[in-house]
Amino acid sequence: MKLLRYGPAGRERPGLLDRDGRIRDLSGHVQDIGPDCLAPEGLAALAGLDPGTLPPVEGNPRLGVPLAGVGKFIAIGLNYADHAAESNLPVPQEPIVFMKAISSLSGPNDPVMLPRGSVKSDWEVELGIVIGRRAAYVEEAEALDFVAGYCLVNDVSEREYQIERGGTWDKGKGCDTFGPVGPWLVTADEVGDPQDLGLWLDLNGRRMQTGSTRTMIFGCATIVSYLSRFMTLMPGDIVTTGTPPGVGMGVKPDPVFLKAGDVMTLGIDKLGTQRQDVTAWRRTGTEA
Amino acid sequence: MKLLRYGPAGRERPGLLDRDGRIRDLSGHVQDIGPDCLAPEGLAALAGLDPGTLPPVEGNPRLGVPLAGVGKFIAIGLNYADHAAESNLPVPQEPIVFMKAISSLSGPNDPVMLPRGSVKSDWEVELGIVIGRRAAYVEEAEALDFVAGYCLVNDVSEREYQIERGGTWDKGKGCDTFGPVGPWLVTADEVGDPQDLGLWLDLNGRRMQTGSTRTMIFGCATIVSYLSRFMTLMPGDIVTTGTPPGVGMGVKPDPVFLKAGDVMTLGIDKLGTQRQDVTAWRRTGTEA
Repeated sequence: MKLLRYGPAGRERPGLLDRDGRIRDLSGHVQDIGPDCLAPEGLAALAGLDPGTLPPVEGNPRLGVPLAGVGKFIAIGLNYADHAAESNLPVPQEPIVFMKAISSLSGPNDPVMLPRGSVKSDWEVELGIVIGRRAAYVEEAEALDFVAGYCLVNDVSEREYQIERGGTWDKGKGCDTFGPVGPWLVTADEVGDPQDLGLWLDLNGRRMQTGSTRTMIFGCATIVSYLSRFMTLMPGDIVTTGTPPGVGMGVKPDPVFLKAGDVMTLGIDKLGTQRQDVTAWRRTGTEA
Repeated sequence: MKLLRYGPAGRERPGLLDRDGRIRDLSGHVQDIGPDCLAPEGLAALAGLDPGTLPPVEGNPRLGVPLAGVGKFIAIGLNYADHAAESNLPVPQEPIVFMKAISSLSGPNDPVMLPRGSVKSDWEVELGIVIGRRAAYVEEAEALDFVAGYCLVNDVSEREYQIERGGTWDKGKGCDTFGPVGPWLVTADEVGDPQDLGLWLDLNGRRMQTGSTRTMIFGCATIVSYLSRFMTLMPGDIVTTGTPPGVGMGVKPDPVFLKAGDVMTLGIDKLGTQRQDVTAWRRTGTEA
């Protein structure tokens, strides 16, 4: 199942994508794609609906973050060996954990706004895990049972803020619009093996990142189990799992950073694509 | 005004403390002490009520986190020069920013649970700022206009997880129950100058921390203004502002860490006190 939320920012409605790629409205069945929907019973109820009976949505509406009620937006750093190398950092011995502010959450095709004065904003295509069941101290072998599904994430990062302003990373990861998620939350049954998905990102039509979740240092099951020892993961939490090589900071001989007017397009097998115009920061009044 | 939430975890009701120290029920006027309540109009509406007309609450109910709908739980590190010294770390040139998982939020007198295998859990009495209005790129001179009020926070920290497990801090700051907040959200008008408040923490009746917000390196206005350049602060966000000297990690000759059976009591002038029994981690099913 491909779950989604469509409509203007802050007023999204729940929907799903049918086999023909058409959005169907779910608001007659659920109020929103929230934490309650993501539990096994909630997903089973949605899976029991015949998409053909749901009202089709006309036109080409904006898509929002495909789930509401995100409590934590957790991120794993340096989780591909080649990306660690391009960042001039050692391969971590255990997952590096940081957090993205939930006010950074943004629709998959919404503009990415550069913070005022930003000179080192960068891209990171990533596989996002969406938690479906409360997970505390879960074993690796059972960890994927706690996953509702997966989504495409652009872990947009301001490298100066992240690395040169005190070193605790969160400062450069949670700027407004730095967390595009979607287009869809694809349920785990439809994704199959999360460790066999190709990822890519283009800047202005030029391929910058190419990778596969096969080369993650710590796979999804390991990450969920590991995190669950430090904090209880809740339904609706998103865990974004690190990026393959090809970020702007790693370009030789000189790094490349985002500027207004740039266009990022990115995708992951089975999880759809995103497209973001890069703009200057402006007051939108719709930040999460 | 002293706003609060009382009742069993997950089913708290809104209330306020009257001049006689009695809890009065607010549920006839607001559904909860949520972000909408914290805007100037929301607070003005509550301030317009005569507490004597509100139903008194009998008995001595549990208190929860005094506000609901916390989106971000942001923290400032090493914000007292003496605490930086005891941590063997340099005084920061600009605020150190990290995030506490919102699933760590906990009532002011709820037990603090040690993560399984934890050997370095520690305490930190801190002044918490509660944001009342959306704040993006606000100047220092106007920053306190965006503050709804203040609260007492224990920024409980697992030092091994924070410092020795990859270095991005969040891992040791967001464990379940590591964020006791309350007893009250005291509105800014009642607090007056946030830079003139005494803080203290006792472990098993022995004074460990004594300080004053006068000696913060970066004051509340600076912190709000600074953070607002990295992310939009939203109504209901909590910013905890760092701890004075006297944490367990800094005890000479040997550090002292929390163990089951310990009792922490702590307080800040005008903001009330907390008391937490330290226990082993257990499944409660009520994590935020």
